[in-house]
Amino acid sequence: MQLYKDFLEAARKNDPCFKNKMDVFLYPGFWALFYYKISRWFYLKKCYFWSHFWMEIGKRLTSIEIHPGAIIGKRLFIDHGFGVVIGQTAVIGDDVVIYHGVTLGATGKEWGKRHPNIGDRVMIGAGAKILGNINIGSDVKIGANAIILKDVPDKMTAVGIYK
Amino acid sequence: MQLYKDFLEAARKNDPCFKNKMDVFLYPGFWALFYYKISRWFYLKKCYFWSHFWMEIGKRLTSIEIHPGAIIGKRLFIDHGFGVVIGQTAVIGDDVVIYHGVTLGATGKEWGKRHPNIGDRVMIGAGAKILGNINIGSDVKIGANAIILKDVPDKMTAVGIYK
Amino acid sequence: MQLYKDFLEAARKNDPCFKNKMDVFLYPGFWALFYYKISRWFYLKKCYFWSHFWMEIGKRLTSIEIHPGAIIGKRLFIDHGFGVVIGQTAVIGDDVVIYHGVTLGATGKEWGKRHPNIGDRVMIGAGAKILGNINIGSDVKIGANAIILKDVPDKMTAVGIYK
Repeated sequence: MQLYKDFLEAARKNDPCFKNKMDVFLYPGFWALFYYKISRWFYLKKCYFWSHFWMEIGKRLTSIEIHPGAIIGKRLFIDHGFGVVIGQTAVIGDDVVIYHGVTLGATGKEWGKRHPNIGDRVMIGAGAKILGNINIGSDVKIGANAIILKDVPDKMTAVGIYK
Repeated sequence: MQLYKDFLEAARKNDPCFKNKMDVFLYPGFWALFYYKISRWFYLKKCYFWSHFWMEIGKRLTSIEIHPGAIIGKRLFIDHGFGVVIGQTAVIGDDVVIYHGVTLGATGKEWGKRHPNIGDRVMIGAGAKILGNINIGSDVKIGANAIILKDVPDKMTAVGIYK
Repeated sequence: MQLYKDFLEAARKNDPCFKNKMDVFLYPGFWALFYYKISRWFYLKKCYFWSHFWMEIGKRLTSIEIHPGAIIGKRLFIDHGFGVVIGQTAVIGDDVVIYHGVTLGATGKEWGKRHPNIGDRVMIGAGAKILGNINIGSDVKIGANAIILKDVPDKMTAVGIYK
């Protein structure tokens, strides 16, 4: 219920095409969060097989993969959503907007905490890859197809290969 | 029926693997146009919920998202198709070829007309993002993973970050 | 059965989240190889319609497209997998790791052999596009969102636009 209200607020603010309250149920970004919550419930109980199972169900139905280990703030709005991958140790603040094709991933060089931290009100453009245990500040904008490999300070816009 | 004939012609011209007339029904690019037509029918009648509903059905079945507001020319050939997103106010000419991962999107700075216009016989490489209310001329080629943020004149090839 | 054992070995080595032997059946990368094998069986018998049919089934269920003409080595590990496209004449060595959004594609300028050859133990980052009949050496790493248009020698790391 809270999920519905939060998503409604986020959709209204971020999608110029948004028309109708019922539309919320048509957004894959809404369902991705719904399955994430189920998957996370099993994860916190250490039922890893069922956690993984519900993650995969959500992933096939929405094309968005959110690892149940990720910690997600309020009103996350994933628009379009194809191929979004959010890794196990990613941490996301409030009011973040993520477009399709975005990866919050690892570089393959770290184990343990190996995915990024994202601040509040961050906008991440389509196809951007944010890799490694780095910090993205609040109010940051990340350009489409950007590769982010180091910390981005608050209020900055980062594009291209940023390392 | 016209859709079938047009798609057959486009597939023959653009896909070196094309073998068989029946194959048309296996291309997600064909079904994406089919669902787009249903969705657009409701859209033009201003039944926005059902329009959105059929858009989502098409999107889940084909992994291609075409907003019913987009205006599409003849013989559009979307190859592979995963994660293609075509925005509400995009306009596409005839004989265009679009590969997987392409976005005809918005920059987030404009409302109203905020998606690109694409000329005739344009080829858009995999993963390219064309953002904002810009004009892509005819016979243009756009490189894979390119980011296009300003007008591209006729017959040009644009790659990398083009702004 | 061999497929299961190989995939288990690959998943253990490459995925820090891997916990459970049964998990293998939850990886889309496993099912993609399973459908590829069915599709390839028909392909080698020259039943092209059924080959294409099973390729499409696999593609819709896993979001990974592997053309049955591609030749694939042992223990290929496709992680996450959304939007991976492996073309008809691609050749892949052993112990390769491919992330989501990777394309082994063609440039549109060649017919016949038009997709890349990948060596052993290559790691291809998310969103990378490797295009044309080029050779990627063994132990190579390809960065996320990279565009690779010419040969990469053994043990190199290639990022950005490499041409």
